[in-house]
Amino acid sequence: MTTIKKAIVLLSGGLDSATVLWLAKKRHKPFCLIFNYNQRHKKEIESAKKIALKAGCDCKVIKLELPEGNCSLTNMKMSLPASHSTQLIGEKIPSTYVPARNLIFLSLAVSYAESTGAEAVFIGANAVDFSGYPDCTPDFFKAFRQTIKKGTKSGKKTPVKIMVPLLNKSKDEIIKTGLKLKVPYELTWSCYQGGSSPCGKCDSCLLRKEGFRKAGIIDPA
Amino acid sequence: MTTIKKAIVLLSGGLDSATVLWLAKKRHKPFCLIFNYNQRHKKEIESAKKIALKAGCDCKVIKLELPEGNCSLTNMKMSLPASHSTQLIGEKIPSTYVPARNLIFLSLAVSYAESTGAEAVFIGANAVDFSGYPDCTPDFFKAFRQTIKKGTKSGKKTPVKIMVPLLNKSKDEIIKTGLKLKVPYELTWSCYQGGSSPCGKCDSCLLRKEGFRKAGIIDPA
Repeated sequence: MTTIKKAIVLLSGGLDSATVLWLAKKRHKPFCLIFNYNQRHKKEIESAKKIALKAGCDCKVIKLELPEGNCSLTNMKMSLPASHSTQLIGEKIPSTYVPARNLIFLSLAVSYAESTGAEAVFIGANAVDFSGYPDCTPDFFKAFRQTIKKGTKSGKKTPVKIMVPLLNKSKDEIIKTGLKLKVPYELTWSCYQGGSSPCGKCDSCLLRKEGFRKAGIIDPA
Repeated sequence: MTTIKKAIVLLSGGLDSATVLWLAKKRHKPFCLIFNYNQRHKKEIESAKKIALKAGCDCKVIKLELPEGNCSLTNMKMSLPASHSTQLIGEKIPSTYVPARNLIFLSLAVSYAESTGAEAVFIGANAVDFSGYPDCTPDFFKAFRQTIKKGTKSGKKTPVKIMVPLLNKSKDEIIKTGLKLKVPYELTWSCYQGGSSPCGKCDSCLLRKEGFRKAGIIDPA
């Protein structure tokens, strides 16, 4: 009999991290970390909790106090960037960039993993249909793996595995993968505005819309 | 006229980070981050606040929810490791190791730096008279610098500088440096027990005691 190993899954409430949770469930017992960093779309936190519940996994919401800065996701005095076509998304780093966000999330996840004996951390980052954030790139994850190899107790022999299964997939490939796994996309929330219904215009809405269109499927959310 | 640049200083309340704050003050305007991670010696937080005040710097206490784990600094059901001589300290990683602590602290500090336009982050880590923590080693800082180069917006052109000025100094050298700068060591707190007075037996007390002895100075605290 093989023991199912524990994993920490970073869950945002969007479709990428929900897909990753179902991928992680295949071989691990996930524990989900959800972050409240005073994001404009706090609504995603409620989605994330529902998704964890649906997956039958425990979760914890961690409150982070970050400066508002010049980030349009955390500084409510700013507006979200004007909508444009998906072709232009990722050409330059948009104002929705949150300084060191994935670095902070991963660092806390690695701490939870080491403390609870989880062998891996899963993150839904994607470097194809994405906003060009530097903390979603292969080079970042490569450097981060080296950092935990050098800077954690388990790092020398069995560093916590950093799993980024969607890194090189397009949005429609992600959606197709998720549908096969029966990921409850109706529970996911992507829109940066966080209004009563998706704005349909922000980068996140546009990438999602294009993904479902290419996959030839109607968005259930 | 040159503008004094901002820096983020990680302040624990101990003598190393206090010394670093005074070093940072030479050329920067520091903003101090203090962490409450439910450490046994929460008393150090009050020391850190007094030190920041004495330095004339603003500070912020950040609350972090970490699992208790198998760490004797955060799990109150555990005892601190038995006292031994300073020669043996650092031979193996002790139970006071907090998983990914400096990684989390630095990641948050880098986020604050990028958000507030600070050019550097200062940390009082030391790899000579230390407890053997992997996140205090030169290799860790080297890898971390690479990670922020790859994973932050400013990383490509002007990555936040990670300053570890005490990395290769012995404890008595640190103390001598601090005394020249008039660091208020009487305000610092090192003891892991966090009782009404220092226990004199934990690794942190032993390293401090030996440092003052070698420096030929009476500990003012």
